[in-house]
Amino acid sequence: MSSITLIGTGNMARTIGTRAVAGGNTVEVMGRDQSKADDLAKALGGGTTAGKWGAVPTGDIVITALLHDGVVPAVTEYGDALVGKAIVDISNPFNAAFDGLAHSEPTSIAQEVAKIAPAGASVFKAFNTIFRGVLEQGRPDVFFAGDDSQAKADVAAFIESLGLRPLDVGGLKMAHWLEGMGVVTVGLAGHGVGHGNFALGANEVTA
Amino acid sequence: MSSITLIGTGNMARTIGTRAVAGGNTVEVMGRDQSKADDLAKALGGGTTAGKWGAVPTGDIVITALLHDGVVPAVTEYGDALVGKAIVDISNPFNAAFDGLAHSEPTSIAQEVAKIAPAGASVFKAFNTIFRGVLEQGRPDVFFAGDDSQAKADVAAFIESLGLRPLDVGGLKMAHWLEGMGVVTVGLAGHGVGHGNFALGANEVTA
Repeated sequence: MSSITLIGTGNMARTIGTRAVAGGNTVEVMGRDQSKADDLAKALGGGTTAGKWGAVPTGDIVITALLHDGVVPAVTEYGDALVGKAIVDISNPFNAAFDGLAHSEPTSIAQEVAKIAPAGASVFKAFNTIFRGVLEQGRPDVFFAGDDSQAKADVAAFIESLGLRPLDVGGLKMAHWLEGMGVVTVGLAGHGVGHGNFALGANEVTA
Repeated sequence: MSSITLIGTGNMARTIGTRAVAGGNTVEVMGRDQSKADDLAKALGGGTTAGKWGAVPTGDIVITALLHDGVVPAVTEYGDALVGKAIVDISNPFNAAFDGLAHSEPTSIAQEVAKIAPAGASVFKAFNTIFRGVLEQGRPDVFFAGDDSQAKADVAAFIESLGLRPLDVGGLKMAHWLEGMGVVTVGLAGHGVGHGNFALGANEVTA
C-alpha cells in the first residue's frame, strides 16, 4: 500500500481520499484552510491525518487536488518540501467555453509543474479524464503519464490499490494529450453520451 | 444505408470498405492508380464501383483514406467535385517519434481540409483512434467531430451501419484532440496495453 498526501480539501480530494482509505493506504490531507483539512481528515477516517499547509508531506505520493490555476502556485509555495515526492496533477485547465485548453501553447499543468518542481521530485498527470461522480461510483480506467519509471511504478500501484486500472500512456509530454482527453470527455457529455455517467477507457477487442 | 466513396486504395480503405459493404452501403473506390482502384473495387465486391480520380464522387460521404500529408492535396485537387459532400478525414498526422503531432499549431488535418474544401462541403474527423486490426476484428467506438449537424447525422448513421457506435465529441475544432487521442493510443500500445489489440472507448459506469 502507498502513503499519499492530498493537497486540497475539495470534492476531488474527498473522492480520491475515500477510495485511498478504502484501499488501505496511509492518507494525509493538507489545505490552506486548516479547519477544512482537519474536517476532511476526520470525515475520511481510517487514520487519515491533517498536515500543515507547506510542510513536508508524509506521503510519498502527493496529489494536488486543486483547481488548475492553483497547482503551480501551490507547488511553488511548497518548494523543497516536495523533494523526492511523486507529484500527481489531476487538473483540467479548460478554457471558458469548456471546448479547449486554457493554455495556448502545447503544454499542460503537469508539464508546467515539472518546470518549477524541486530537483528530485517527479511529476505525473493522472485522473483528469474521470468525472468525480464516475470516480465515486465506478471502476474507470486511469490514464497517466510521467517520466520517472520508478516513481511511475509507485503511482501505478497506488491506482491499483483504488481498485482501478492504471494505463501508462507514456512520458510527461503526453500530459498535454491527456488534458485534451479531458476536453473530449466534456465534449462527449455535452453531446449526450452516457448522460455524463461514463469514462474513457481502453477496451480490448473481442470479435 | 449510405452511399460512400473511398478516396484511397490502401489498408484503411480496404478495411472500411469491407465493413461498409457488409453493412449494405453503396461503395465507390477512387485512387490515383486506377488499376489499384479497380482491383480494390473487385476485391470488396457487393457492387462496389471504381471511380475516376478527381471526378465527382458518387458517394454522399467521401472518406479520404490517405496518409495525413496526402489529404489536403487530394481535397485541393478534387476542388468543386466535393461540393455538397461530407468529407471524412481519418488520418493521424504523427510526428517522426510517434509521440506528438506533426503540426506545431493546435490544428488538425480535418481543420486544414475545412479551410480549403469547397463551399457546401462539410468536414469530419473520425476513425483515427482505431488501429486497423481492431477495426477489422472488433467493435470499437468511433469518436467523431464536425460542425454540420445534418451531415453529422448522416455520418453517424454510416458508422452505425458498420456495426459500430458513433460518439459525437463536438465541433470540428475537437478534431485536434481526437488526433491527440491517436497519439495516446499509440502511447498506450507502446507501453504494453492490450498488446495493441484495444481501442479507446467511452464506458458507462457500473458500480
